[in-house]
Amino acid sequence: MVNPMQISQMKFTGLCAFPLTPFNEEGFQEDAFISLIRRLVVAKVNSIGVLGSTGAYAYLNRQERAQVIELALEHARGIPVMAGIGALRVRDILLLAEDAQRLGVQAVMLAPMSYHKLTEDEVFDLYKTVTDHLSIPLCIYDNPGTTNFKFTDELLAQIAQLPFVRSIKIPPISAYLPDAKKRVDSLRKGIPSEVSIGISGDWSGLDGLRAGCDLWYSAIGGLIPETLMDIVHTANQGDFELADRTFQDMEVILDMFRRYGSIRVIACAAKELGIVNNFCLPPPLKPLPEVEQSLLRALIHELQPA
Amino acid sequence: MVNPMQISQMKFTGLCAFPLTPFNEEGFQEDAFISLIRRLVVAKVNSIGVLGSTGAYAYLNRQERAQVIELALEHARGIPVMAGIGALRVRDILLLAEDAQRLGVQAVMLAPMSYHKLTEDEVFDLYKTVTDHLSIPLCIYDNPGTTNFKFTDELLAQIAQLPFVRSIKIPPISAYLPDAKKRVDSLRKGIPSEVSIGISGDWSGLDGLRAGCDLWYSAIGGLIPETLMDIVHTANQGDFELADRTFQDMEVILDMFRRYGSIRVIACAAKELGIVNNFCLPPPLKPLPEVEQSLLRALIHELQPA
Repeated sequence: MVNPMQISQMKFTGLCAFPLTPFNEEGFQEDAFISLIRRLVVAKVNSIGVLGSTGAYAYLNRQERAQVIELALEHARGIPVMAGIGALRVRDILLLAEDAQRLGVQAVMLAPMSYHKLTEDEVFDLYKTVTDHLSIPLCIYDNPGTTNFKFTDELLAQIAQLPFVRSIKIPPISAYLPDAKKRVDSLRKGIPSEVSIGISGDWSGLDGLRAGCDLWYSAIGGLIPETLMDIVHTANQGDFELADRTFQDMEVILDMFRRYGSIRVIACAAKELGIVNNFCLPPPLKPLPEVEQSLLRALIHELQPA
Repeated sequence: MVNPMQISQMKFTGLCAFPLTPFNEEGFQEDAFISLIRRLVVAKVNSIGVLGSTGAYAYLNRQERAQVIELALEHARGIPVMAGIGALRVRDILLLAEDAQRLGVQAVMLAPMSYHKLTEDEVFDLYKTVTDHLSIPLCIYDNPGTTNFKFTDELLAQIAQLPFVRSIKIPPISAYLPDAKKRVDSLRKGIPSEVSIGISGDWSGLDGLRAGCDLWYSAIGGLIPETLMDIVHTANQGDFELADRTFQDMEVILDMFRRYGSIRVIACAAKELGIVNNFCLPPPLKPLPEVEQSLLRALIHELQPA
């Protein structure tokens, strides 16, 4: 049975912070994960996105993912938790969706992971099948760099009509405001009003908010949430100039995101901050080159509130 | 302990045929798979590549893959069997490698599957770790369209020095002979002499052999092996003109490979030939559009020996 109260529980606004999952062949650093979640609670992020790309969902099996969700829910202090349920095969996605719902997350997010490049028809059917089995909100996770699938606005609009779809996480947009606005407006026109649009790819975050996105899905916000909440808050008050100035301090790190992928940068930064005690991602993923780690060491402490 | 006899058992020449794995939510069509293997035995292909991309390895779990390998070995009548062991996580690859060896395959093949785009360093370490745990030959499976990773010749040469590496399956090359030759020659210069070079992407098969590749890794050869063996045999005798003529009959189908991916085309063709009794791939994969299926219906029977 669908519980409409439950469906409205997840607020897709402000900052949705994506914490790292420190889970590798040495096991799950539970204390480190709890401390990541606690930082999000202290910063009062609007929602927590566990098992996103930065949360290494694609590398974790069903049991490992359930462990992560349980721990997040236990420590989220009522902040809505959204969990990634992506997998290559629909059968597995449905099992992961079932687990996530049973454990009590407030929403799920789903990227069309692929090995064989998927067709539009396949991707639509994928979301159709999954939403047929859902009773909580779903966020369409558009991440062409990892899924090898490029959504068109037409397809997003079609999927957004499905029941339980409540948000679309879009990839980085143009830094040129008129183009960015055009893209957000055009997407907005095709989707129901209850479906929010969230920007992702942290270097594009402020560009997204400026162009009218409803929220920021942030990987760096999973690590230094207070700083990010500050930026989002300032931007939402309309002072983009001030938001930009704070944001500029992150430029070097965000440039590393582009070159090395945010997951490796965040994992190394978490080590520099003493949150995790070693490189916490599963092989084949490896840490940044030593020279970039030194640079990160010099920069990351500056980005935290004193 | 390494058994040198065992290592030399797999012949990386001629035609390595990649059968489809008819394994979806309705289960494993074992009889269909046996009939696919029998066709390869009758055609005397040089080797059988199970659980390749066309064999849907990425969608099958450990237990399902073991079932496929066991059945292939049971019916291969001594033809060497190579099995795909790719997965996103090294831990899982090592388990799959262990299974494949224990079950008795003659070689394994490994593509650097990715979710987060891999670095060169990560890919080298991946092959290093896996070959450290192997005692049978390995084929480097270069399939940038599905793995989202582009090998350089330098990296291939580095990996080819690792123990147990015996072959490189390269993606389609230029149809312009001088360019194709240059590419194969340049790769050949960097790798040990016992490492063979095999072409893949069926539309590029004859271009590959003409350019000096040692073998053809073929998806369509997994379905209509006699016709492909005929073409390879003719080409290896130097009569590329005759090989080209036979090959041209496949042009429309090979063009579908490019547009829809070989796995969907082969799965639909297997149904048209009555080998499988329904669309046999796991969702989210879907059959070709109806219009293409009709075209395929009209063409596929012509490609089999009378």
